[in-house]
Amino acid sequence: MTSGLDIPPAWIAADWGTTQVRVWLLAADGTVLARRTSDKGMGRISPDAYEGVLLELIGDALPIEGKLDVVICGMAGSRQGWSEAPYAATPCPPPSIDMATHVATQDARLNVHILPGVKQMSPADVMRGEETQIMGVTARDAQFDGVICLPGTHTKWAHVQAGQITEFATFMSGELFNVIGDHSVLRHSVGRDGWNETAFRNACVKAIENPNTLMQSLFGLRAEALVADLSPEAARATLSGLLLGAELTAAQSYWDSSDVTIVGENALSQAYAAALATQGKTPRIVDAEETTLNGLKAAHSHLQESQS
Amino acid sequence: MTSGLDIPPAWIAADWGTTQVRVWLLAADGTVLARRTSDKGMGRISPDAYEGVLLELIGDALPIEGKLDVVICGMAGSRQGWSEAPYAATPCPPPSIDMATHVATQDARLNVHILPGVKQMSPADVMRGEETQIMGVTARDAQFDGVICLPGTHTKWAHVQAGQITEFATFMSGELFNVIGDHSVLRHSVGRDGWNETAFRNACVKAIENPNTLMQSLFGLRAEALVADLSPEAARATLSGLLLGAELTAAQSYWDSSDVTIVGENALSQAYAAALATQGKTPRIVDAEETTLNGLKAAHSHLQESQS
Repeated sequence: MTSGLDIPPAWIAADWGTTQVRVWLLAADGTVLARRTSDKGMGRISPDAYEGVLLELIGDALPIEGKLDVVICGMAGSRQGWSEAPYAATPCPPPSIDMATHVATQDARLNVHILPGVKQMSPADVMRGEETQIMGVTARDAQFDGVICLPGTHTKWAHVQAGQITEFATFMSGELFNVIGDHSVLRHSVGRDGWNETAFRNACVKAIENPNTLMQSLFGLRAEALVADLSPEAARATLSGLLLGAELTAAQSYWDSSDVTIVGENALSQAYAAALATQGKTPRIVDAEETTLNGLKAAHSHLQESQS
Repeated sequence: MTSGLDIPPAWIAADWGTTQVRVWLLAADGTVLARRTSDKGMGRISPDAYEGVLLELIGDALPIEGKLDVVICGMAGSRQGWSEAPYAATPCPPPSIDMATHVATQDARLNVHILPGVKQMSPADVMRGEETQIMGVTARDAQFDGVICLPGTHTKWAHVQAGQITEFATFMSGELFNVIGDHSVLRHSVGRDGWNETAFRNACVKAIENPNTLMQSLFGLRAEALVADLSPEAARATLSGLLLGAELTAAQSYWDSSDVTIVGENALSQAYAAALATQGKTPRIVDAEETTLNGLKAAHSHLQESQS
């Protein structure tokens, strides 16, 4: 087996999430030699399958002699994952390699480290993977002081100050959008695709200005489709806006008096930016994947320091 | 085929919902001669199947000559049902038989009437079936003036004054509890059964006192299970309490200055009563099925008047 790479990688970075795995084969100077993905996320495989999945992804790049560092963030470190990487507790810096869990492998050429997640005791909260993205932000800007919003199925909002994650909160708005749109009576009224930006912004504002009416507004989408011909596209955008508006209401202490940096995929980041814009905020948007990789690089640079 | 009934029924009352059908074979004085059920609700059959399902349920009781009145409430009157019974619009009394849709049948011995639902244009809302339960309350108490709460998958709250439904609101809390507990990440933390009454009441109060925190509290159940060993029973009761508390917050204009009558199944009615009790309210509880039947009887008495 040949790697098809002109240069052998110096180390491997990996983001092992619930549904997807991404690995980057990196040169010593941080250049990405190759990027590979698999759908064998934590939710689809058992603990004893991880090494095999990793070898499928990067086995061709292993050295004949010696070891290759693999630094992993994300759900591979959960209790149901490859090997549990216990949480660091807030307030704390994003956990680096010195807190990582070293995983024993059958293939002696692998030197696998899984980065811990972060927990908060009150109010109870957890993250796995986002702490590495936060490190990706602070690695590029050691003076960073503000709020980082990481939108996704479970969006995180984090206060970051002097390199520390001081507080964070998770919102299930993205997952609620999916389960309500797919499994409740609203599935008859909410389109699977299509969008109406005005309906989205109006719904954000309505949810923020009248937070108590969210529960009534949800069934209202079904009723408006029945008695007022609400279109599936407008219903979809309205449901999204109502949930995101409710999230912004609950997360107000995060965004109302700090600069906000959004770390996410483009479409979702734009939706968050549009929602924040209704409240007069102009967040900075940075790319999620690039930020994850920057965080993994920062973790690995600490590993090199400790090995040297 | 014989009916097994000593007395032939004078008419048939039916509550044809989304998942279930209930029919009552009634004597002229309102005595229930028989009660029968089927799982062939609106959600499971096509429009051309209704007559056959009805004949399975009551064909044995049809007269050799003449016609038997069948008065139906519920989703059989929806656009996807047997025959659309157009909504009455608020403010209005619960629609009676004079607004019913007469359905043509192949069996000439059937005289089928479907009662309309009620719609509200702003905020948009709809009900089908609950209006007949409201009639069941007002038929027994012509002076009724107050609020009727009809808990279920989609709970309705209605202001009723001088025989009129003046305003109503629908909340999907019951359905949200199911879809969140079954399909979101909380399925790992929320038990399928079990209960903790203290956790339920505390969550109600928390949601009412801090309505803005609902969105954060949801993922908090997952986090508390991970970092603080929250039990599946407590998580289940807390999820229910958070959603019901959010509903009470949104429905406050209904319950805070009126007497409340709850029309529902026992366990659910008790949960609503317990939630209202945290706010110092003592609702009256009446049985849902008996109230439905009383509403259908009131509708049929109008039919007799118009036929005589």
